[in-house]
Amino acid sequence: MNRILFEPEEIKDGVAKIYDARARHILEVLHGEAGQVLKVGVIDGKIGAGKILAIEDGEVAVAVETGDSGPEPWFDLVLAPPRPRVFKRILPQLAALGLRRLFLIGANKVEKDFWGATILKPENYRPFLVEGLQQSGTSILPTISVERSFRRLLPKLERMDGLKLVAHPYGNPAPLPPRNSGANVVFAIGPEGGWTEGEVEALEAAGFLRYSLGPRILRTDTALIALIARFL
Amino acid sequence: MNRILFEPEEIKDGVAKIYDARARHILEVLHGEAGQVLKVGVIDGKIGAGKILAIEDGEVAVAVETGDSGPEPWFDLVLAPPRPRVFKRILPQLAALGLRRLFLIGANKVEKDFWGATILKPENYRPFLVEGLQQSGTSILPTISVERSFRRLLPKLERMDGLKLVAHPYGNPAPLPPRNSGANVVFAIGPEGGWTEGEVEALEAAGFLRYSLGPRILRTDTALIALIARFL
Repeated sequence: MNRILFEPEEIKDGVAKIYDARARHILEVLHGEAGQVLKVGVIDGKIGAGKILAIEDGEVAVAVETGDSGPEPWFDLVLAPPRPRVFKRILPQLAALGLRRLFLIGANKVEKDFWGATILKPENYRPFLVEGLQQSGTSILPTISVERSFRRLLPKLERMDGLKLVAHPYGNPAPLPPRNSGANVVFAIGPEGGWTEGEVEALEAAGFLRYSLGPRILRTDTALIALIARFL
Repeated sequence: MNRILFEPEEIKDGVAKIYDARARHILEVLHGEAGQVLKVGVIDGKIGAGKILAIEDGEVAVAVETGDSGPEPWFDLVLAPPRPRVFKRILPQLAALGLRRLFLIGANKVEKDFWGATILKPENYRPFLVEGLQQSGTSILPTISVERSFRRLLPKLERMDGLKLVAHPYGNPAPLPPRNSGANVVFAIGPEGGWTEGEVEALEAAGFLRYSLGPRILRTDTALIALIARFL
């Protein structure tokens, strides 16, 4: 936790009182005491500094002053989801890396069970995203939308501007495009069994370029981070 | 499993007989049948093709023909290890990304318990490395050496040639060096709590450049993959 984040409604008259995992982190890891200043932020709001006002029975009261904008989220991801267990593990990592919008898409090799997984409920995935923001020190929550129909999402993907890349192990190795900060970036990552050839062609028709990470075939969760990292 | 790997001693007169997880993968995922040709390789040896000769009671007999060299491992890693649970998870990923040599180093914020962890025994970590090789389709096993003394490893690090980078969230953002295939690359990644300033300075004195992945602070396991991926 490199920044303690609060929900807007947790702050009353400029003070947030917490007694959950964040309070334990302040006490046990940061060795917090009254007067100490912490990095803080408001979820989907600004970041800034928070002074510890009081600690009592494990409850920490923090005076929150925010006014700065943290690093903006900078990429969208079209993801054919892996198993729920893997999905949970990558959510904080994606939020930490700067995810803006996540589109979960139904590709041929996505396990059908996934769409009924409890992790798809906002109240269940939100804590994983907040965990990632607190790790990275940012505050803007990514949005997640579910579109089980691959074909139905395509027109929307086609209308998106910017650099659009689909990870494909057997694609032509693309040269690393120059970093063009401000430009929109959209990544598409296939399911654990890979995209079908038809799916890759449909993405290409929607403006995506095949992008290879080299001769090694990486697991979905590794390829995901590797691809995003090349544009950090 | 994108390539089935065999131990050299498993191959007798050009034929390997297996009935473990590899056999189940051949049968259940690859729907193997007699005559089918698979991607195979020999651990620490060559890669090639294997023809299924026979399947009986879950045992698969494969005629192994190897002669090609797969992609060579290309980076060394100096790692202040995270918790054993995280370490186990990153081992296959490191092997898949092309790890050549791993040096486990004792940094100030490494949990002391780590050095007694059972995962440090070759018989325990080897399967995780082989898993990564089978995923990526390569065959050369990384080596792991343990040097608990930070100071004792330094002269060795100093003598290493090539591009040496230490990941540091507050370092100067370095421009991405041009890819210079063939050149040695050594990464240094700190413990979950980060390097101490003294440790970073000692690494700098040994020829490492501070390398920042940007304004977001990434978890060790994310930063590790992100850093390596920028040089893939």
